[in-house]
Amino acid sequence: MQDIINYIKSNKNNYIEELKDFLRIPSISALAENKEDMKKAAQFAADKLKQAGIGNVKIFPTEGHPIVFGEWLGAPGKPTILVYGHYDVQPVDPIELWDNPPFEPVVKGNKIYGRGTTDDKGQLYVHIKSVEAFFKVHGSLPLNVKFILEGEEEIGSENLEIFINQNKNLLKCDTVLVSDTSLYEPGLPTLTYALRGLAFFEIEVTGPNKDLHSGSFGGAVANPVNILAEIIAKLHDKKNKVAIPGFYDDVTKLSKKERDNFKLLKFDEKSFKKEIGIPDFHGEEGFTTLERIWARPTLDCNGIFGGFTGTGAKTIIPAKATAKISMRLVANQNAGKIGKLFAKFVKEIAPKSVKVKVTEMQGGAPFMTPITDKAIVAASNAMAKAFGKKTVYIRDGGSIPVITTFAQKLNAPIVLMGIGLETENLHSPNEHFNLDHFELGILSSALFIDEYSKI
Amino acid sequence: MQDIINYIKSNKNNYIEELKDFLRIPSISALAENKEDMKKAAQFAADKLKQAGIGNVKIFPTEGHPIVFGEWLGAPGKPTILVYGHYDVQPVDPIELWDNPPFEPVVKGNKIYGRGTTDDKGQLYVHIKSVEAFFKVHGSLPLNVKFILEGEEEIGSENLEIFINQNKNLLKCDTVLVSDTSLYEPGLPTLTYALRGLAFFEIEVTGPNKDLHSGSFGGAVANPVNILAEIIAKLHDKKNKVAIPGFYDDVTKLSKKERDNFKLLKFDEKSFKKEIGIPDFHGEEGFTTLERIWARPTLDCNGIFGGFTGTGAKTIIPAKATAKISMRLVANQNAGKIGKLFAKFVKEIAPKSVKVKVTEMQGGAPFMTPITDKAIVAASNAMAKAFGKKTVYIRDGGSIPVITTFAQKLNAPIVLMGIGLETENLHSPNEHFNLDHFELGILSSALFIDEYSKI
Repeated sequence: MQDIINYIKSNKNNYIEELKDFLRIPSISALAENKEDMKKAAQFAADKLKQAGIGNVKIFPTEGHPIVFGEWLGAPGKPTILVYGHYDVQPVDPIELWDNPPFEPVVKGNKIYGRGTTDDKGQLYVHIKSVEAFFKVHGSLPLNVKFILEGEEEIGSENLEIFINQNKNLLKCDTVLVSDTSLYEPGLPTLTYALRGLAFFEIEVTGPNKDLHSGSFGGAVANPVNILAEIIAKLHDKKNKVAIPGFYDDVTKLSKKERDNFKLLKFDEKSFKKEIGIPDFHGEEGFTTLERIWARPTLDCNGIFGGFTGTGAKTIIPAKATAKISMRLVANQNAGKIGKLFAKFVKEIAPKSVKVKVTEMQGGAPFMTPITDKAIVAASNAMAKAFGKKTVYIRDGGSIPVITTFAQKLNAPIVLMGIGLETENLHSPNEHFNLDHFELGILSSALFIDEYSKI
Repeated sequence: MQDIINYIKSNKNNYIEELKDFLRIPSISALAENKEDMKKAAQFAADKLKQAGIGNVKIFPTEGHPIVFGEWLGAPGKPTILVYGHYDVQPVDPIELWDNPPFEPVVKGNKIYGRGTTDDKGQLYVHIKSVEAFFKVHGSLPLNVKFILEGEEEIGSENLEIFINQNKNLLKCDTVLVSDTSLYEPGLPTLTYALRGLAFFEIEVTGPNKDLHSGSFGGAVANPVNILAEIIAKLHDKKNKVAIPGFYDDVTKLSKKERDNFKLLKFDEKSFKKEIGIPDFHGEEGFTTLERIWARPTLDCNGIFGGFTGTGAKTIIPAKATAKISMRLVANQNAGKIGKLFAKFVKEIAPKSVKVKVTEMQGGAPFMTPITDKAIVAASNAMAKAFGKKTVYIRDGGSIPVITTFAQKLNAPIVLMGIGLETENLHSPNEHFNLDHFELGILSSALFIDEYSKI
């Protein structure tokens, strides 16, 4: 491997120049005016895959933006890695807050600035370059590789979901490798092995058939805002646990090893509180902050609306009130089952003096690859070698629906080898990417190919 | 009195024609474009007072719309009645829902249609005509009369409040007579002897310094919407009583006589529920619907807002949430004291993981004239004679701040001899006024002058 490592290190500047070309294409998936740019970005990625040595590259048109697929299956009997990434980027507004134009990438110190640098062009590019290094140095790969790069990650991956369902055989693999998450801290090799799922609902409480004068009716008529508040209050118990009966029944408990791993991270509660400006933490009794965010299911009200909300006073009993409520789910919870428990409980606790409607808005399964999985072990070793430090294991409290789809439909472990940082302004002005991590990412990817070829 | 009664009855059609002239002036106090119309309406009322026989009539300009004052003090040693009314009207939108133009009054059957018919031009006009009848028939009144007619009732009576404070001597009287409320049902003589007060607040709960991703932070950070919901839920106990300590301490209890009076009204719960479309009533345990609305203090959330409220799903922990909360107060409760109890309690029950701000928006004292007061007794007798039925005693759950100001500043009992109906579309398209009640109102006013002159 040393020759491959050397090759990668000596080509870093070339890689940065190539990446800049990729970044100059304004592939904003959300905007109709960038439709042609989306095609250009897909073509760019396809060309780079070919140049890297991936012989069979194809661009699949979809109802939305194209999907780029490539494969090299020249190692029969060896495992197959499916690399996933996305070539689309977020819109750039508010444009006036960018120090440099978002699609004119610039390097300052060890960082490259521009839309898509860390999310996800810079991260997906590391895998193209690691594969290329093998072909340039050895003329082949020690295992089989497939690439699937989509252009709709920032708008919901709708057509990729369809594509996966219709092309399970084409995408068949032993593991899915993704770099679209973050390192726990700069320079620290990190594997994310679990994501939370989501069950998102809207509750609408209806009282009278119109807003009523609170003087003429107040005291005798159920107030939908008050009732909705009472319903929401009853969704948690005094220990800040979710009070829906059966809610925790299927939760995979945190193992001692996992809890110990989290403790090693020396999470800085003080600066976390300061950064988001909260006077104190607030959560489920018996768990640390990281455990609460990463490994415990939650219930949050994402929005609420009812009655008069303008300036001043208006004395009404509102006709109705609405709340958006979502639950983050953890491994082994089922969004559909949780949704049923939620709707049943909400209807049970509502008084007969109002009508209550519960609507499902969105749902997604939680995901977890056990840290004992061979792919995780190989990735852990690879990153440790590249970074020169022991790899840490983290979870992520959020959801990446397409990851769950890969795990479920392809029945494969997922390696989330993210090399971004949460501070790199994903989705914000002045997005950037640490170029040391870019290089370490290419090395990690190459070392993973080596490690995983030996399992 | 019979000759006065006869005179009134024989002039009914003239009164209606005069009222139409008054109604044709579009005296919408809320709209700047109607400023000149406001002056015209004030002048019209002043002219009619003079024509009625009130010698001393004056129009006082204010920062807003003019106040019309008139007095006839030709009965030294006799009591003085102060008649209050307002010549301004509500805006007319949505204009397309009117069957006839709002300022082109038409009579259909026993009703007159047009903006201001019942609120309050038609109602205040009865007192001008009753006074006129005395002068026309007897050349004098058996007691002293003052009139104060304002043009800002629909926009908060701000300048009248100032005027009352600055002219207590000018307005000195033994009772204040007002027709700006409703009969309990058509043809039923009704006196309203109590109004509820108001204490209106805004609660703002602040959590993190910006909206947070509910995946990355959910479970560890207090959610301002959830916390606000919990605060609101704690404002009532399981018996639907307000749970603020001390809230009921000063409440004047309903007497047995009052409760018996209410029972006589045969309140139709079924049609009340049907009209406002509620599945069931909801209120303080141990009280009837009328008692809850009229004679018990309440707490209602008038509006709530926080986080994402658009279509679809957005997974955030909102940075803050706001609610408008008002309490209706009953006799002997003090808005200031209640406000302090409220703010203290809200802050006590809020967790330390959020910041809570309580802002007072509006406050007003409750009002009650005991039904044993001489003015009420005289008014009751007068209405009973005019209508030919026993007068009923009701309360009103709403607030009329200027009534409370009259009661407090002039230290006088208030007679709310309203002759409107709640079904007469006050503030809505097709406002109308029952012309039988118009005549009965003039007769009631004349009979009250007679009755009250003998106390």
